[in-house]
Amino acid sequence: MALPTSSRLSARQVRVRRRLEELRLDGLVVTSPTNIRYLSNYVGSSGVLVITRSGVYLLVDFRYREAVSVLQRSVSACPNLLVRDVPESYDDALIECLRDTGVSRIGFEAAHVPVATRDQWRRTAEARGLSFTFQSTEQLVEEARLVKDASEIATLREAAARLTEVARSACEAARAGESERAVAAVIEAALRRVGYERPAFDTIVASGPNAALPHHRAGDRILRDGDLVVLDFGGVLDGYCSDLTRTVSIGSPSPDARRLYDAVSDAQRSAIEAVAPGIESTAVDAAARSILQQRGLGEAFGHGTGHGLGLDVHEGPRISRPRADVRSVRLEPGMVFTVEPGAYIPGFGGVRIEDDVLVTETGYEVLTTVPRELLVL
Amino acid sequence: MALPTSSRLSARQVRVRRRLEELRLDGLVVTSPTNIRYLSNYVGSSGVLVITRSGVYLLVDFRYREAVSVLQRSVSACPNLLVRDVPESYDDALIECLRDTGVSRIGFEAAHVPVATRDQWRRTAEARGLSFTFQSTEQLVEEARLVKDASEIATLREAAARLTEVARSACEAARAGESERAVAAVIEAALRRVGYERPAFDTIVASGPNAALPHHRAGDRILRDGDLVVLDFGGVLDGYCSDLTRTVSIGSPSPDARRLYDAVSDAQRSAIEAVAPGIESTAVDAAARSILQQRGLGEAFGHGTGHGLGLDVHEGPRISRPRADVRSVRLEPGMVFTVEPGAYIPGFGGVRIEDDVLVTETGYEVLTTVPRELLVL
Repeated sequence: MALPTSSRLSARQVRVRRRLEELRLDGLVVTSPTNIRYLSNYVGSSGVLVITRSGVYLLVDFRYREAVSVLQRSVSACPNLLVRDVPESYDDALIECLRDTGVSRIGFEAAHVPVATRDQWRRTAEARGLSFTFQSTEQLVEEARLVKDASEIATLREAAARLTEVARSACEAARAGESERAVAAVIEAALRRVGYERPAFDTIVASGPNAALPHHRAGDRILRDGDLVVLDFGGVLDGYCSDLTRTVSIGSPSPDARRLYDAVSDAQRSAIEAVAPGIESTAVDAAARSILQQRGLGEAFGHGTGHGLGLDVHEGPRISRPRADVRSVRLEPGMVFTVEPGAYIPGFGGVRIEDDVLVTETGYEVLTTVPRELLVL
Repeated sequence: MALPTSSRLSARQVRVRRRLEELRLDGLVVTSPTNIRYLSNYVGSSGVLVITRSGVYLLVDFRYREAVSVLQRSVSACPNLLVRDVPESYDDALIECLRDTGVSRIGFEAAHVPVATRDQWRRTAEARGLSFTFQSTEQLVEEARLVKDASEIATLREAAARLTEVARSACEAARAGESERAVAAVIEAALRRVGYERPAFDTIVASGPNAALPHHRAGDRILRDGDLVVLDFGGVLDGYCSDLTRTVSIGSPSPDARRLYDAVSDAQRSAIEAVAPGIESTAVDAAARSILQQRGLGEAFGHGTGHGLGLDVHEGPRISRPRADVRSVRLEPGMVFTVEPGAYIPGFGGVRIEDDVLVTETGYEVLTTVPRELLVL
């Protein structure tokens, strides 16, 4: 695996410039670190990227100057990048950059720019007698990121595959008498061992009644016989995220636990089998949801069926019910997302099963390669 | 260690309400997860808190309902909390909550609310025939957080102290022939072992020329004789962050390396000794900076001297040069921050030394307890 090459970055920039033309914008201020990385390979935790119709400018302070110069000497250099130094304030440096490039109507990422920052840009421009139109844009780079290119798919496939070895370690560690926290530590050590740069999110080990809390992390509770245990973990490989959930049983599962597991498992299989190009994302959710409803578990499944995976562990497309505030997305080859229905019974426990799925030309490919049967440990 | 008690939370809410009165606001929409936690002990990754002159409302969706009800049955329950369910959109739920509470002039956290979100609030209110004044506020809860209370100081002291054992493991691992990444893995395993819930940030192991990159993380480079290695790590304990940097030498340091180390060490000691109530934060920075300038290293020290520590690993007060965009803060007992000057020589390497310091009634207390001499490994 390696960083995307310069020519790959060029193609991404072309896509963004096409949108700028459609929106009649002279440029876009990119402040989301993930979007900056996507367009430039720059990964510092501070920085602002400006992409205009003809140029790309990266504003960075002292701390990242050397890292940028290393990047720019590599085969993954950002094409045509002009690096601008930020001596003090990013806001000042941005306004000066915009002045020098001569743009007038400039887009910004409304979902990532706080009100205070946009107000500060306006004040700074005004104080210098400059006048720009700052135009809200939404999802401009994110939409370019929805369909993964070949290098991204290769990385996501490898990132998902390596979870198999981690799942094996997790299942060896999840035993009666161990604490949730100890199992989480084994999982995170295994994530490191197989080569991920970091966990993609805080590992979840939710046992017994805690398994009814969909976003419980890992606490002091000791696993015991009869528990269902939700194990939810993922790793980041070359910037790309993987995400897997398995639910295991400590000792023989009760008939109720088995029924719960089978319902979620059937729902998940049905949702995965619904994945194909041209299908609406809401239809994938409906496939899982209708099965859980048939089993009387509609109320027990309160979250969406999945989320996109890429440089962010939660990105588009969202796989959920039709909602006023979430656009349904028509699936296209190259989209990658999780399929993770669950059912949660307060006081009793819960089950969630999650895999990472790629939309292919003809249907789907499940990128994660861990068996889905209920494991009895 | 435990979560702050209900009475502690009451005191924090009183402080925020006093500010609301001063600003003639009927309430504040709190969207920063850290600020929500500070005021309510709620730690879910989604949620919105509304604090009015008389009430506290927490808006959460299905996933967090059970976690909130567990919290509210504990001794750390948020006093007088009214929990409101979010069936679909947080924006809709917020506008309904504001309508029901009868507020009119409502503050929001301008540094945390994206332009897109504020615009959506306005549209949602308008669509329902409601009219609120959404007023930008800055640093309202953050200012309450600047001075730590007794329970926070106890946690920060313990969080800092546990780094000593981690530093010992780090120094055992940092040997010629080991990769930066392997050393980072040892450090992160040690953070877990001594009881931190997670690393406070991505561990930095920057060896040889990489040590000249202040924000290098940990890569494939193999440590070798003659390297200076910057080790920067911290852990989160009960939500509170610790942060430590030591620079070690693999084998005997060259005279240049030794000089660099001594300069940074003297600068750091001088800055720590400058800490006292009533002193401006810029004076602490100046104490470090003037020594590095005397040694001809002014240009080699491009970042600020430190940052506040608490629920965030970077919070107020900022210890930096006088800057147009950073308010100097007069130090008060109970403030906690890092003191971490550095010097970075491209191609050669770098040194940074960092401790966590508490402002006391009479001066300072260094919370981290790791020896500061140059360790030769």
